[in-house]
Amino acid sequence: MLDSVEIAYETWGEMSPRKDNVVIICHALTGDQFVASDNPITGRPAWWPRMVGPGKPIDTDRFFVVATNVLGGCMGSTGPASIRSNGSVWGAEFPHITIADMVRAQIALIDQLGVEDVFLALGGSIGGMQVLQWTVQARNRVFAAIPIASAGRQSAQNIGFYEVGRQAIMADPNWREGAYLAEGRRPDRGLAVARMAAHITYVSEAALKRKFDRRLQDRQSVGFGFDADFQIESYLRHQGQSFVDRFDANSYLYITRAMDYFDLAADHGGVLANAFRGLSTRFCVFSFSSDWHYTPEESRDLVRALNAAGCETSYVSIETDKGHDAFLLEEPDFEAAVTGFVDAAAEARGLPPRMPRS
Amino acid sequence: MLDSVEIAYETWGEMSPRKDNVVIICHALTGDQFVASDNPITGRPAWWPRMVGPGKPIDTDRFFVVATNVLGGCMGSTGPASIRSNGSVWGAEFPHITIADMVRAQIALIDQLGVEDVFLALGGSIGGMQVLQWTVQARNRVFAAIPIASAGRQSAQNIGFYEVGRQAIMADPNWREGAYLAEGRRPDRGLAVARMAAHITYVSEAALKRKFDRRLQDRQSVGFGFDADFQIESYLRHQGQSFVDRFDANSYLYITRAMDYFDLAADHGGVLANAFRGLSTRFCVFSFSSDWHYTPEESRDLVRALNAAGCETSYVSIETDKGHDAFLLEEPDFEAAVTGFVDAAAEARGLPPRMPRS
Repeated sequence: MLDSVEIAYETWGEMSPRKDNVVIICHALTGDQFVASDNPITGRPAWWPRMVGPGKPIDTDRFFVVATNVLGGCMGSTGPASIRSNGSVWGAEFPHITIADMVRAQIALIDQLGVEDVFLALGGSIGGMQVLQWTVQARNRVFAAIPIASAGRQSAQNIGFYEVGRQAIMADPNWREGAYLAEGRRPDRGLAVARMAAHITYVSEAALKRKFDRRLQDRQSVGFGFDADFQIESYLRHQGQSFVDRFDANSYLYITRAMDYFDLAADHGGVLANAFRGLSTRFCVFSFSSDWHYTPEESRDLVRALNAAGCETSYVSIETDKGHDAFLLEEPDFEAAVTGFVDAAAEARGLPPRMPRS
Repeated sequence: MLDSVEIAYETWGEMSPRKDNVVIICHALTGDQFVASDNPITGRPAWWPRMVGPGKPIDTDRFFVVATNVLGGCMGSTGPASIRSNGSVWGAEFPHITIADMVRAQIALIDQLGVEDVFLALGGSIGGMQVLQWTVQARNRVFAAIPIASAGRQSAQNIGFYEVGRQAIMADPNWREGAYLAEGRRPDRGLAVARMAAHITYVSEAALKRKFDRRLQDRQSVGFGFDADFQIESYLRHQGQSFVDRFDANSYLYITRAMDYFDLAADHGGVLANAFRGLSTRFCVFSFSSDWHYTPEESRDLVRALNAAGCETSYVSIETDKGHDAFLLEEPDFEAAVTGFVDAAAEARGLPPRMPRS
């Protein structure tokens, strides 16, 4: 049980006098609050500059954009790497959290900011789960919602993949039953393996073939050894190694576990539509054709439930070979469709129109 | 460099006087030579009793069936767990091997048995790679070939998945740079993680949903912890833990690396069809609709190459939700199609017909 929590957040743009232009952006598993500006802690660039900024689909000249680091995260919000009241690091004694807990913390922030209604909530992957949870939990306080490459429940395959990652972390002797920070260690090798396994699921087979195929890494022929002969190996190792510099292994355990536990249908008598019944929120659901982590079929299940609940719902299926991570990459059709939905929602909300840019 | 190798093998049925009824079965990554009889070393049951035995599609009343443990394996054939001439265990100083090396050892066995021509070679997954290699390497000494759920080259995605597994093994401090057996240790936790990651790829998402979905393991509600709350977690953990009792981690490293290096096209000027040009072997290629480890598309690439080479080629696509492992499971259409192809090939070869069974 957490007595109090700190939630780190960033904002862009200005809140309108009527506080009716608030956009909530929910980040994915390994994302953070630095949506549209560089992360001063890690030095990494903003993760969604294509989507958020002046004149962008989420136009910070019009909207007041708020992004938190999720509860359980490691970029300033309370999480397993935080110090508890007795002065020690939480570690694996941190209480388990759910997507609903993450959203509860975000709603508390909005309440503190004196915002009654959010204009728009959007996010991809576990960010999309939070968006769905927002609409249910902050009942009719969300005008429009964009869940991207997401699902109403974590699938067995995804539980399986994240369980592989957790086992890799917990198998690392430096994990120390979660108490590694107190002992000045880090389960970097296990966390890197977890990241490598997960990363494969974020990219389509076709994209891996296009980007890497069987090309060799800085060599003319295979080395007959366990070094990274192939570019795909080198790429995955780099993904793993760079990840450990910026992420806490226990946060990875707790956030993936929260994803496993996400099942909006189970929370509503086993019927997903029941979660959404009576909502005035307008939804635009996005999926990517080559996404096998959160499949188009899972988005369509969500759309069917929204339709059954009588919600105003659009569904956009983007044809791409970029897989799950497409929402983070250059996808002009995706950006155009988000822009269209956002502008129409803003008009329906009575917000001023997008300013023409020279 | 290996001075000499031992190859463990099993046989079923009787060699005909003309030695024209020999069937070679090539096992998959974690399989062994105990195709149709129980493994006396591990106590595990035969892995392909549905396909091989009296009256079965590969009828041991008609055929002399030979199955080896692959070179590099850990079930009796020379591999990294073997003792080298200086009295120490090979470990990670074992030379790297290729699919061609595995097949070379199998051809040497056939030569020793005085067999000029093999009637049929068949196998799934890496076994299918060996089947393809057999047809190319034992040129026109293979009358018929059945590569199942396989490919002419390892894909980037598969290299990636096996690289995750290798990294998990090599991250285990008990791996000891490969010298664990000499030190009386075993990298069991790393090997278990490798097996878990691989196992997910052997099963389709639909089958995981059908078999497990989000059902809980021996509990009424989630435990909010890192125990195996979900059946899928418990299942994968069991797959990992039972695997380490029967498999050598270094064998896993070497065999997966041999798979990575497999690229029949690259061996033949970059054109897969060149590998097969002029072969008199008749082929029947099988794929399974929900197999995302070795996809139907990869089998079709293979079929196109065989067609371009002018080989006598059939292609059977089995509709199933069982994924890559379908060839090991109950698939009546698969068994019927194999039976039909084998019987027709036997007739063309002039072998006696299948005996009617009461």
